Amino acid sequence: MAIIDLNTDIVSLTAALVDIASESLDEQEIADSVEHALLGLAHLEVVRDGHTIVARTHLGRSERVVIAGHLDTVPANGNFPSRLVGDVLHGLGTCDMKGGVAVALKLAASMAAPVRDVTYVFYDAEEIAAEFNGLGRLARERPELLAGDFAILMEPSDAGVEAGCQGTMRVDIRTTGERAHAARSWMGSNAIHALGPVLDRLNTYVPREVEIDGLLYREGLNAVGIRGGVAGNVIPDEGVVTVNFRFAPDRSEAEAHEHLQETFEGFGLTVTDSAPGALPGLQQPAAAAFVAAVGAEPRPKFGWTDVAQFSVLGVPAVNYGPGDPIFAHKADEQVPVEHLHRVLEVLTDWLTP
Amino acid sequence: MAIIDLNTDIVSLTAALVDIASESLDEQEIADSVEHALLGLAHLEVVRDGHTIVARTHLGRSERVVIAGHLDTVPANGNFPSRLVGDVLHGLGTCDMKGGVAVALKLAASMAAPVRDVTYVFYDAEEIAAEFNGLGRLARERPELLAGDFAILMEPSDAGVEAGCQGTMRVDIRTTGERAHAARSWMGSNAIHALGPVLDRLNTYVPREVEIDGLLYREGLNAVGIRGGVAGNVIPDEGVVTVNFRFAPDRSEAEAHEHLQETFEGFGLTVTDSAPGALPGLQQPAAAAFVAAVGAEPRPKFGWTDVAQFSVLGVPAVNYGPGDPIFAHKADEQVPVEHLHRVLEVLTDWLTP
Repeated sequence: MAIIDLNTDIVSLTAALVDIASESLDEQEIADSVEHALLGLAHLEVVRDGHTIVARTHLGRSERVVIAGHLDTVPANGNFPSRLVGDVLHGLGTCDMKGGVAVALKLAASMAAPVRDVTYVFYDAEEIAAEFNGLGRLARERPELLAGDFAILMEPSDAGVEAGCQGTMRVDIRTTGERAHAARSWMGSNAIHALGPVLDRLNTYVPREVEIDGLLYREGLNAVGIRGGVAGNVIPDEGVVTVNFRFAPDRSEAEAHEHLQETFEGFGLTVTDSAPGALPGLQQPAAAAFVAAVGAEPRPKFGWTDVAQFSVLGVPAVNYGPGDPIFAHKADEQVPVEHLHRVLEVLTDWLTP
Repeated sequence: MAIIDLNTDIVSLTAALVDIASESLDEQEIADSVEHALLGLAHLEVVRDGHTIVARTHLGRSERVVIAGHLDTVPANGNFPSRLVGDVLHGLGTCDMKGGVAVALKLAASMAAPVRDVTYVFYDAEEIAAEFNGLGRLARERPELLAGDFAILMEPSDAGVEAGCQGTMRVDIRTTGERAHAARSWMGSNAIHALGPVLDRLNTYVPREVEIDGLLYREGLNAVGIRGGVAGNVIPDEGVVTVNFRFAPDRSEAEAHEHLQETFEGFGLTVTDSAPGALPGLQQPAAAAFVAAVGAEPRPKFGWTDVAQFSVLGVPAVNYGPGDPIFAHKADEQVPVEHLHRVLEVLTDWLTP
């Protein structure tokens, strides 16, 4: 087990975390290191669940905030270990999201008596299929550990606040026909031709834009797959378009489904995947105070993120972390040193009485 | 090697041929049997090329006709060997096309001095990829063996005359776009959506009907395949529709290609497969006499067949054989005994001085 020193500076701590390899499902060592470091802090109660570590203050404050980050990374891509070049720290996980984890660990160590009670969550397996996600596991099995008035997910957000997230639903739209030899096509009915009106509706669809808590969410309706065909000489009897609907968080999954049924009326729809959105919840006192502390205009989050896990528990959540998300999962992954200092400072100020 | 007796009745001879298993590429035994039987006929010159047997009269007649049939079958499907049930002979190859082969062998044996010189061709590997086709091999390598004024391919045609055949061309129509995350679809360009206008053109296309030599050919333009999609959360950057054009034999392949380019103007087309049609050629004296002898109205052939192999050599050709083609390649393959007798009688009369 690598020993990590929470008293070192934020850049060195980020580098130390990056240098502990922790590809998804291989988080034992980094979880051990984090747990060991947190157990040395008398002001925190530490709970371990698998390779997820939860550390909490119990100061009886009127508000509790959750600060969460995942410990795993995608596979290395010639970018391990870390390298500091000028004012930028390079390497796997610098951006997504060990910089954010380092900030949270620094806060955990330095803020013995924050103005709000804090629950720190360091979880495993975020970068792979949802069934493995440590935050999801806690939400299902030990939701009391995630209780709070507000949550900050320290995903890279370019050191700005990304609020809420859009929902996503995938449906298969299926057409049927009748097979026939292509030389006598009039004996059959072409299911691929029958997909034409589905594509026409996609082409004429005007996605909605909606303002929620002052944030403009932009929906999207897109074919992400299409298939059909039996053989080169056969009129096909089935065609399928897979459509992905990204919907603003003012729609529930049921409402999103209803909207798709209306949009593709006359066609058979099968939902193959669905995840709810998360409302920004910026009107909550803790959230409003946080946004004021950051001092930047919140942006809407279009992609689905783990903030929706908190939303399901009734906890408003935002993404706020160092690093430009464009570098996530890239060979040239990196985080600016300035982001690390700034995010740590903002959160320290926000938690200081 | 099974000994086949050409002096037996047509039904017994068909059954004997059916009972020699001869799936494509496994024609050694049936070719040996056919060759052995033909070598016993002094009025025929017999040439073997692989598992293809050619037998010819040399009587100095003013016309020469080619009578051809393939010896192979598709794989058995619980329908081997033959069974005579009432007036119908059942079993693999009864319809496609050992009934026709039996008729040709009976003619070869009985017509020592036909009014037209005759070239009988019994060939291998018709039921699989074109590269193996014995008739195609002769056409490429020994075209002189296929010389003639008229050809009859004894494929099942319900004992009627099917003249000419339509051509076929397959093209891939490809659209391109730009990938983006589905949560920010407006950053990309959806190549599947761009397939919409291709399907629209297919849906509004009115296929041509054209009369040639009194036969009405009906063309067809159909999508036989469609594909696209990168991942469930990615705006796709490529879409492909595979279109099959079945064209009447008054169009050349070049003209068919030009027609597709016009129909799908603005889209990129790639030809992946093409075979020319064959004009019916019913105005040729031998063909006209044959049609008169059969006494049935000729029908246009929509599917591509080996008659096009003759057409390429400048030999007009028709399909004429016992059996309803609907039973070809089916578990319940069968040929009516009446067809066998009738087709043999018609051809015998036509060749009798």
